[in-house]
Amino acid sequence: MTPPDTVLGVRLLATAHALPARRVPTAEVARLCGVPEAIALKRSGVHERRWLSGTETALTLGTQAAREALNRAGLQVDDVDVLLNASGSQLQPIPDGAALYARELGLHGAATYSLHGTCLSFLLALQHAALLIHTGRARHVLIISSEGGSVGLNPHQPESTLLIGDGAAAILLGPPTRPGQGLHATRIETHPAGADHTRITGGGTLRHPNHPTATPTDFTFDMQGLQVLKLASRVVPPFLERLRPGLSSGLPGITRVIPHQASQAGLDLLRRYNWPEEQVEVTLRTLGNVIAASLPLTLHQAVEAGRLGEGDTALLVGTGAGLIAGGVIWEV
Amino acid sequence: MTPPDTVLGVRLLATAHALPARRVPTAEVARLCGVPEAIALKRSGVHERRWLSGTETALTLGTQAAREALNRAGLQVDDVDVLLNASGSQLQPIPDGAALYARELGLHGAATYSLHGTCLSFLLALQHAALLIHTGRARHVLIISSEGGSVGLNPHQPESTLLIGDGAAAILLGPPTRPGQGLHATRIETHPAGADHTRITGGGTLRHPNHPTATPTDFTFDMQGLQVLKLASRVVPPFLERLRPGLSSGLPGITRVIPHQASQAGLDLLRRYNWPEEQVEVTLRTLGNVIAASLPLTLHQAVEAGRLGEGDTALLVGTGAGLIAGGVIWEV
Repeated sequence: MTPPDTVLGVRLLATAHALPARRVPTAEVARLCGVPEAIALKRSGVHERRWLSGTETALTLGTQAAREALNRAGLQVDDVDVLLNASGSQLQPIPDGAALYARELGLHGAATYSLHGTCLSFLLALQHAALLIHTGRARHVLIISSEGGSVGLNPHQPESTLLIGDGAAAILLGPPTRPGQGLHATRIETHPAGADHTRITGGGTLRHPNHPTATPTDFTFDMQGLQVLKLASRVVPPFLERLRPGLSSGLPGITRVIPHQASQAGLDLLRRYNWPEEQVEVTLRTLGNVIAASLPLTLHQAVEAGRLGEGDTALLVGTGAGLIAGGVIWEV
Repeated sequence: MTPPDTVLGVRLLATAHALPARRVPTAEVARLCGVPEAIALKRSGVHERRWLSGTETALTLGTQAAREALNRAGLQVDDVDVLLNASGSQLQPIPDGAALYARELGLHGAATYSLHGTCLSFLLALQHAALLIHTGRARHVLIISSEGGSVGLNPHQPESTLLIGDGAAAILLGPPTRPGQGLHATRIETHPAGADHTRITGGGTLRHPNHPTATPTDFTFDMQGLQVLKLASRVVPPFLERLRPGLSSGLPGITRVIPHQASQAGLDLLRRYNWPEEQVEVTLRTLGNVIAASLPLTLHQAVEAGRLGEGDTALLVGTGAGLIAGGVIWEV
């Protein structure tokens, strides 16, 4: 066995995003939910988010982001060995969403499948891609995170309705070009005491859409934000120490923090770890919580703005429904 | 980069299954679908299957199989580093099903998530587990494949309704104890020309359960078996040659074939490759097509019957919705 502290060699070739055209100001969502705008703004930290409209779907956005990532990397679709769908919301139950992206992209004969861990799906796909590339099982891996969560919102549950935005990001990964380039640490921990704190109970086999007693509310988001925060503030500090000693009170060796954009309260929690605000990338105000696409969208923003580049070390970190805590330390 | 032909070291520690109590004879399903029993038997190749009843769910069965696998391996739940949910049907959209299994099992702080590629989800999880164990990132990985597809059947679509059964399998994996033990080849290929041949279109964001024009039929299986067979018979032989040269006309180095139990016609296709029938494990007649659980259920049967043991080499192979073709060559 290779020692677990060995770097998983992987290089970021390109990032791209695709956003719905429709910008939805918080005033509009506040009205929908019957909540005063000022309170809605303060509680969510979201000023506007994008929601699907017209012919846009998570599929069209994800495809657009993937094409743009290929263009930026100077690669053709046939250069992709593995396409990973890393989205929190499903396109349709069967076939797997990755096959639908492959069809849109004209990708034939590559390996395509999904990794799922709600909001942290992108981290799972990133680790998996690095394992494939590091062991020589793939050269180019395309990850698509695309969300259309706005179709499953419940205005009677303002907590989640105010937070959720739609959007897509895609990233292309390839083999490292220098020693040390890649994932230096990855860690995922599930604390199922939080399994009921964020949920959509209806739609799978436990509560099938055709179940005689299923109601429309069963198919929408339900979130107990305070419970999530309480559990996260208990489990995240020791989790960070296991990811890298010193992380719960500083940023040893980290250039840039790319956090999941769960909520304003979630971002506020990060202050407890003495992470300087200027090192933390934020997209919450303009995009909301875009479920699994938040992490790669925030990564994309950091790369685009020149705040994360070759030789820098990023900490991608967050919590998701489960409760699942996850982090990756990546020398880009 | 390690050459891709290196063995991914992994050892099978235990297999287990859990089946619904209710045995459903084909005569009963034939009546439900309005199809003569003789034709139903001949077309599907399924004599009986198990369907959920009473308080059984995919969650209760998957949990039961996981506990049994732990018992058989002589491990405690806390010995599990990573729990992978590898099921074709979802328990509920949020949180991820793996977190729900973790709660049932009392597993706290381990990594839990899902890999999804419809009927081949188990192969994806097996490859991922081997990557984690081979690179020292995990010692014990528990894979659960559990299906409750019977809740989404449409009697007006006899082709799928006659095939689908419910059930669960769990396997435990650990580090190899001798050189050569592990995965010698893995290959996944998606041919999205088949993306519409097997599907459930409703339930995700493309056709949300609350979509104004969604109908109950949208949430049920739809399968064009003949189209699947035509595409599979074209793409599988070259796929097999890429997995291991000679596989499309024999079984070089393979002791036992564990095929996905898609249908009788699907199993009949295997004859074209000159694979001796006595080397091919079959569960279709008594369990039907149990979606992603078919592969580990069939593996479990082979191990239980003593037809696959230490030192043998298994070929796990099949096709799923997508169309996705996948295979793993595993020296057990």
